[in-house]
Amino acid sequence: MMVYGGIEAGGTKMICAVADEQLTIIAQESIPTTTPEETLAAIFAFFDPYDLVSLGVGSFGPIGIDPTQATYGHILATPKQGWQQFDFLGALKKRYPETAFAWTTDVNAAAYGELRQGAAQGKDSCVYLTVGTGIGAGVVREGKIFEGIGHPEIGHTYVKRHSEDMYAGTCPYHGDCLEGLAAGPSLEGRTGIKGQDLPQAHEIWGLQAFYLGQALVNITLTLAPEIIILGGGVMNQPHLLAQIQQAFLKQMAGYMETPPVEDYIVTWGLPNKSGIIGCLLSGKEQVTAHD
Amino acid sequence: MMVYGGIEAGGTKMICAVADEQLTIIAQESIPTTTPEETLAAIFAFFDPYDLVSLGVGSFGPIGIDPTQATYGHILATPKQGWQQFDFLGALKKRYPETAFAWTTDVNAAAYGELRQGAAQGKDSCVYLTVGTGIGAGVVREGKIFEGIGHPEIGHTYVKRHSEDMYAGTCPYHGDCLEGLAAGPSLEGRTGIKGQDLPQAHEIWGLQAFYLGQALVNITLTLAPEIIILGGGVMNQPHLLAQIQQAFLKQMAGYMETPPVEDYIVTWGLPNKSGIIGCLLSGKEQVTAHD
Repeated sequence: MMVYGGIEAGGTKMICAVADEQLTIIAQESIPTTTPEETLAAIFAFFDPYDLVSLGVGSFGPIGIDPTQATYGHILATPKQGWQQFDFLGALKKRYPETAFAWTTDVNAAAYGELRQGAAQGKDSCVYLTVGTGIGAGVVREGKIFEGIGHPEIGHTYVKRHSEDMYAGTCPYHGDCLEGLAAGPSLEGRTGIKGQDLPQAHEIWGLQAFYLGQALVNITLTLAPEIIILGGGVMNQPHLLAQIQQAFLKQMAGYMETPPVEDYIVTWGLPNKSGIIGCLLSGKEQVTAHD
Repeated sequence: MMVYGGIEAGGTKMICAVADEQLTIIAQESIPTTTPEETLAAIFAFFDPYDLVSLGVGSFGPIGIDPTQATYGHILATPKQGWQQFDFLGALKKRYPETAFAWTTDVNAAAYGELRQGAAQGKDSCVYLTVGTGIGAGVVREGKIFEGIGHPEIGHTYVKRHSEDMYAGTCPYHGDCLEGLAAGPSLEGRTGIKGQDLPQAHEIWGLQAFYLGQALVNITLTLAPEIIILGGGVMNQPHLLAQIQQAFLKQMAGYMETPPVEDYIVTWGLPNKSGIIGCLLSGKEQVTAHD
């Protein structure tokens, strides 16, 4: 059976899916990300029964995206044991030599999914920011995934510390970059309580909103997208969106005009599905005209 | 005489130039930026003798860049007295109704000038960061000036404070954003000595490099340009470039691979001319194919 495939390859799990011509998903499986060998064996077991026309891969990163470099298709400086310098795309291409591949980051794929079918539908540009175990951002501009000499790694940008925040930060590379100060692990690191168990009234959410709102100011002043979409586990806290919107407005201080904040900073339109949908779409578009 | 015109419109002075078909400048004048009325009278006096085919304007900002909005062509939230909400482009178009106009920021024009004829020649993307009275950045990507719902305002992004820096910052909007902490006025504000009179051994330069290097990390992780070009008065300190390069490498901490730092972070190829050349080029390209 001819199908279009997608892999949303995260550091914790790999979501594999195959879809029909209309990109309706006909099979999906979540595979734990363990060693490359074990994980790939499970990925192959999932896809092998199909005639795979295309495979769109959105991977955790950083990844090599320059086709002229030997590192193209590789996972680069990840803290994930066993995956550093692993030629992920190469291993997939070797198994499926007749398949057309798309290759980008998991968050770029999610941004693209949101643009085509989610909260940014009808727009030409968006930024998708996910806040979970880490913080990552995907960018779409002029309808296309945005990459340069590397792909966006906005989770590792530096931010201004809150004056009362003395926490060292959790990032193994940068300590107190955005991810180090505001990703899921910092919630537990600061309070001793897991993020999902923290009460809504806890002051930590104000600090979280301070950092995320500030990051959205920096994103706006740098990329000026039409809309910013927030996703990821931490955003399951329903009170957090309004706090981030207010922190954004306060720290922007009226400097750049944006759409009304409730239209400009929103939660994902395809909860937990933006990534795999973006993978399926970008894969299929390798073999068909953009519809 | 048929000429191509350009205005590099800064908050202190407006550089006006006219050029021939080869874009060789045949007349140039620097006009102090005072009130809009007085400044425009001097601009008109300069351009009126010519048959102006095109006029490329690179203006201090923020400015309105969305042609569908009433604020298009206006100067927006500037601290510059008298210029807030002034319809600068409108006034020019009224005077020269037959002329083709290009309209962007002064720093976007400078980035474009550097890409076409300066330090980024032969590349498709660059970021130009000027450090002077303020800090501004222009961005070119895929050979074109980069704008979204607004233009880049990277000078007003927030940065991580140096742990020993207690200075409040000079930005009237944000206090301690990048511009507030590291533009020219902060040098005198911190030391009581004008930037150009500060000795090379002064510790302030290490702090300056810390902030500028950090800003270049954030720019790299967000925009991933092929090259970053530094200009502006503060960069006339010849020792500063190497300090910024080192601060960049230290704060990037090996996270994203970039070209060798001496090729990646450079000073301008068209000192004090990037802006006006970018203006002339972008104006002329309104009427002729990009050569």
